Amino acid sequence: MTLEVLTPETLTVEIQNQVADLYRQLNDKNQQRRLKEILQPNNNVIVIICKVDGKIVGTALLSTYKVISGYRGMVDDIVVDSSQRGKGIGRKLMERLLDEANHMKIDEVLLFTGHHRAPAIALYKSLGFTLRESGLYNLRLN
Amino acid sequence: MTLEVLTPETLTVEIQNQVADLYRQLNDKNQQRRLKEILQPNNNVIVIICKVDGKIVGTALLSTYKVISGYRGMVDDIVVDSSQRGKGIGRKLMERLLDEANHMKIDEVLLFTGHHRAPAIALYKSLGFTLRESGLYNLRLN
Repeated sequence: MTLEVLTPETLTVEIQNQVADLYRQLNDKNQQRRLKEILQPNNNVIVIICKVDGKIVGTALLSTYKVISGYRGMVDDIVVDSSQRGKGIGRKLMERLLDEANHMKIDEVLLFTGHHRAPAIALYKSLGFTLRESGLYNLRLN
Repeated sequence: MTLEVLTPETLTVEIQNQVADLYRQLNDKNQQRRLKEILQPNNNVIVIICKVDGKIVGTALLSTYKVISGYRGMVDDIVVDSSQRGKGIGRKLMERLLDEANHMKIDEVLLFTGHHRAPAIALYKSLGFTLRESGLYNLRLN
């Protein structure tokens, strides 16, 4: 198992295709944004991929931004291939994201996850995350 | 009442001082990030300020980033001067943020707010926001 931070230089068509296939396991209805767009230098998002035997089996993204209340990192698009669950890949991806966040001197990492997703919640709590007394609200524009 | 999008060019020491005073009403313990840092071109954050009689009485920030699941806007640092509540300033700030998000063709705007903050929740719902079946988790690094 290897982890790497994807860059515009290391992105290939093969990586894009594999990530697209993987992400479809999570949600095959939503349109996906392309990695090329996500890796633009003006989009402050770290993309970690996990490979097993040369095949991409996991992704994790960290979007970073500074607001008055702090320098934040928002975790998104944590996906692990359904055939590779239970091998600690989600934990490895999260640990690497937190390493990157620490390196960038980010104040606080945030994430949201469905109340029903017990294994994911257990993982996040074991990494030190705590549930906030806040609700998450969204408004779709497109 | 006037609303404006703050830019590096329009930021002054007076604006920074007024925003710092206003933000202390929300939280006088947390360290504040400076507007100069927030308005750097590589930090994709829109800062709206509301003035009444030349004095800043409200702020709203929208951080924008692209991940695989979409082009997101995260709302933060919504503050209205305690002497100016009930005048619709929070609504005006949010409407302006949503105008900016629409203009940027953002897919989805997100925010989180304390479960006990009934007036804020009523405002967000009236603007079309819905509560997600998700918990918000955080981990402070600094």
